[in-house]
Amino acid sequence: MQLRLDRTSRVPLYRQLAEQLRRRILSGELPPGTRLPPERRLAATLGINRSTVVSAYRELAAAGLISGHVGRGTVVVDPAQRRESRAPAGGVPWPQLFAPLATALYDPALEDAMIAAARPDVISFATGQPAPECYPIATVRQLLDEALHREGARLLQYCPSEGYPPLREAIASWSQQAGIRCTAENVLVVSGSQQGLYLVARALVEPGDLVAVESPTYAGALQIFRAVGARLLPIPVDEFGMRVSLLERALEHRRPKLIYTLPTFQNPSGATLALDRRLHLLDLAARAGIPVVEDDPYRELWYDAPPPPPLAALDQAGTVISLTTVSKILFPGFRIGWIIAPWPVIRQLALVKQLVDLDTNPLMQWAIWAFLERRLLPPHLEELRRVHRERRDLLLASLAAEANGALHCRVPAGGLYLWCELADGIRARDLVPEAARQGVAIVPGESFFVDPAQGRSFVRLNFTYPAPAALVEGAKRLGRALSALREARALLAQASSPIV
Amino acid sequence: MQLRLDRTSRVPLYRQLAEQLRRRILSGELPPGTRLPPERRLAATLGINRSTVVSAYRELAAAGLISGHVGRGTVVVDPAQRRESRAPAGGVPWPQLFAPLATALYDPALEDAMIAAARPDVISFATGQPAPECYPIATVRQLLDEALHREGARLLQYCPSEGYPPLREAIASWSQQAGIRCTAENVLVVSGSQQGLYLVARALVEPGDLVAVESPTYAGALQIFRAVGARLLPIPVDEFGMRVSLLERALEHRRPKLIYTLPTFQNPSGATLALDRRLHLLDLAARAGIPVVEDDPYRELWYDAPPPPPLAALDQAGTVISLTTVSKILFPGFRIGWIIAPWPVIRQLALVKQLVDLDTNPLMQWAIWAFLERRLLPPHLEELRRVHRERRDLLLASLAAEANGALHCRVPAGGLYLWCELADGIRARDLVPEAARQGVAIVPGESFFVDPAQGRSFVRLNFTYPAPAALVEGAKRLGRALSALREARALLAQASSPIV
Repeated sequence: MQLRLDRTSRVPLYRQLAEQLRRRILSGELPPGTRLPPERRLAATLGINRSTVVSAYRELAAAGLISGHVGRGTVVVDPAQRRESRAPAGGVPWPQLFAPLATALYDPALEDAMIAAARPDVISFATGQPAPECYPIATVRQLLDEALHREGARLLQYCPSEGYPPLREAIASWSQQAGIRCTAENVLVVSGSQQGLYLVARALVEPGDLVAVESPTYAGALQIFRAVGARLLPIPVDEFGMRVSLLERALEHRRPKLIYTLPTFQNPSGATLALDRRLHLLDLAARAGIPVVEDDPYRELWYDAPPPPPLAALDQAGTVISLTTVSKILFPGFRIGWIIAPWPVIRQLALVKQLVDLDTNPLMQWAIWAFLERRLLPPHLEELRRVHRERRDLLLASLAAEANGALHCRVPAGGLYLWCELADGIRARDLVPEAARQGVAIVPGESFFVDPAQGRSFVRLNFTYPAPAALVEGAKRLGRALSALREARALLAQASSPIV
Repeated sequence: MQLRLDRTSRVPLYRQLAEQLRRRILSGELPPGTRLPPERRLAATLGINRSTVVSAYRELAAAGLISGHVGRGTVVVDPAQRRESRAPAGGVPWPQLFAPLATALYDPALEDAMIAAARPDVISFATGQPAPECYPIATVRQLLDEALHREGARLLQYCPSEGYPPLREAIASWSQQAGIRCTAENVLVVSGSQQGLYLVARALVEPGDLVAVESPTYAGALQIFRAVGARLLPIPVDEFGMRVSLLERALEHRRPKLIYTLPTFQNPSGATLALDRRLHLLDLAARAGIPVVEDDPYRELWYDAPPPPPLAALDQAGTVISLTTVSKILFPGFRIGWIIAPWPVIRQLALVKQLVDLDTNPLMQWAIWAFLERRLLPPHLEELRRVHRERRDLLLASLAAEANGALHCRVPAGGLYLWCELADGIRARDLVPEAARQGVAIVPGESFFVDPAQGRSFVRLNFTYPAPAALVEGAKRLGRALSALREARALLAQASSPIV
């Protein structure tokens, strides 16, 4: 396939590439079913960045001309299968109009995992939700009814962007119990902590800014920081959390705009930042004047012993912006989270919040206020810890029995995930589709690294969402998928051996 | 005051300006209470853009050093009044870290109006909510209880970013009844139409892109487009809506990335785009391949006769992205709106939605699904039309009696607002604080124009939120405010006349 890119043109390279591929697809030169070269290889062949190829492929995917699948690569779509209702009509060349940042959001590996997870016959280890059997549905029904009975129209109107004032007060009290010095003015209520992180990124990060992240880290955070144009500085994580000494060394030469960390029961690794590293991190940040963004959704979900205090509680210098959510300790559907930060930050974030969605649902805020104010959360957390601990141990035991040594999982002291390394050279991107075939959804490690290649022998397994029987059956299916891949490797090795 | 800006420096001009003012404030050279020069005048004096001065003032305001008030200008804050709990603590120089786009969001005129509106003694003409007495609270209580009883945990989990599938189907049916050709795949559920517009702007507009907007237009849209770095091309509105012939002339030389319009009962002017102009606009857009973003929250709120079909129904070429919300036809608290657009656009917007807040509350989506599916909306709309029509006529009659000719209001055929021109040279920025003193909140016209000066003799009055008695009393208070300003002007004119 001959492709020529003109580096002197004002047309971006990725659009040149997309346009040339588009013409070849429409002319039939690349017929349906053709597998396009892997992004990395095509980038190397053309001497361009991988991200340029990614952008071009995504533009073609958005136009419905190609589609990408984990394990199958990127394939030219059969026009008969391009659904008519999906075809862009008429005069607007939509794919050319999309801002490139939006185009760069698409993570086909993650999307494949999510599509598999949504199949009714599939057991999902791919989600991040607490045990649904614990959702306090009766309490929620009663609280919502009481709220509308007592407050009526007031909870159906607009609400201050900063949040429902009584909830801000209750969150401040709740946080003070964790040792965080704050008042209601340091609290911003957000529609889930994904929105919280987005607001922080929008308010603080400008294109080209450097952001220090853990490696691995939350996949959604990588997407957000990339979308606002950040360059990423990955700092490795070991069993005691971020290797702060490596951050210190990096800070000698580079100055990130912020440091993003999940210090407690980290997603995906499960690691918890040790107390001495917490103090070291805060000291570095305060001396350099760099904000620390503490993403802390799992703190209350400890199964062995309570974790060290949150960074926000140890912070003496006002450097920490702390994010929390009820999605992991109650349920995700209410879309309620909060940010605790110095007041000038809250004010700025509230302006951005007003821009992106005006305010957060006041009826939901009232219900969470009642959960905090009436001390309904502590007994609920007790129950969650008990149920989650049992599920963690059950999945670990089932995998030990079924995976036949092909999977090495750390025992996480809290949180929602097992982080597992694949043995025998098995790659996550082969395991994900094979597991889906066997009826179990898992998340490939690639999505959690700045350099996806570093995650190719890892997978993340959630142990809290499936009920006990599903955990056992899911482990069996995963075991079958691992066996199938091992056999395929063995056959391949035989086939490529000289015949004797 | 001596200020020196170095245009060759790598430090942006606004930061140079802010830093020099900051030093003078902290040194006491500019003592508390000092009025800083108006932005426009200082910009002219220094030969820089007004936006540079605005950015500098906002940085100082964010640091708590100055504050801006409609009618009083920008004033150095008394350190005794800088609240200690609000002071940025320790090592992080927050105001310097904020991205300038976020800093540019602050509209002091609008904020003053909102602060006044929140006072319990004030009658608010400043909001944009339907009559709260019509909120179907009993139905909502019953639906939420039924939802949790029937669906339980399923409505408390994560939900597809595109929306709860049955609601997408119901929205498609509802839209088809308005003549819009669409299926569920053309629907994206959003957390209110403010979020819808933000997603559209993020997905389509890159810094420097031109966006055509009506003049006047929704203040929140101006903020969104500015925040994504758009340049704005204002197209005047008359009583038949946007002057499409002027847009056509502009398109001869300039190519906007999109055209933003509120075609029906426009906010703030109340004008409705005539049918021939709708067809002309769509023809222009289709020929040029430019998307039309139709913001259509008021369509169902007609009080005299139904309006022409929405642009989305007239569109033959797939150029229209249409935004709707339940905030204006039920209540704003649920934070539910939707976008109807060609499928590639929906797919792209869903990726951005996933980035900014993952998904929209599924319990709220179920309730709106029930409202649509069970045909609960049509009788509710009948009632809203009746109540709103009465309130519109009552406020118009009260103002005619109380304003003594100082206020000329168009009679809007639908929507939520009176758009009123001030007579006798009275300026909105004088009337807003005087009205607040008299106990009534109004929105100044400046916030609705690309060039605020064009709005200085306009105010927007909502007629649906206050109950009838409050409408009458609010009109009286506004009449008193107008009289006070007239008297002040007369005194001033006397004082400056030569003594005879």
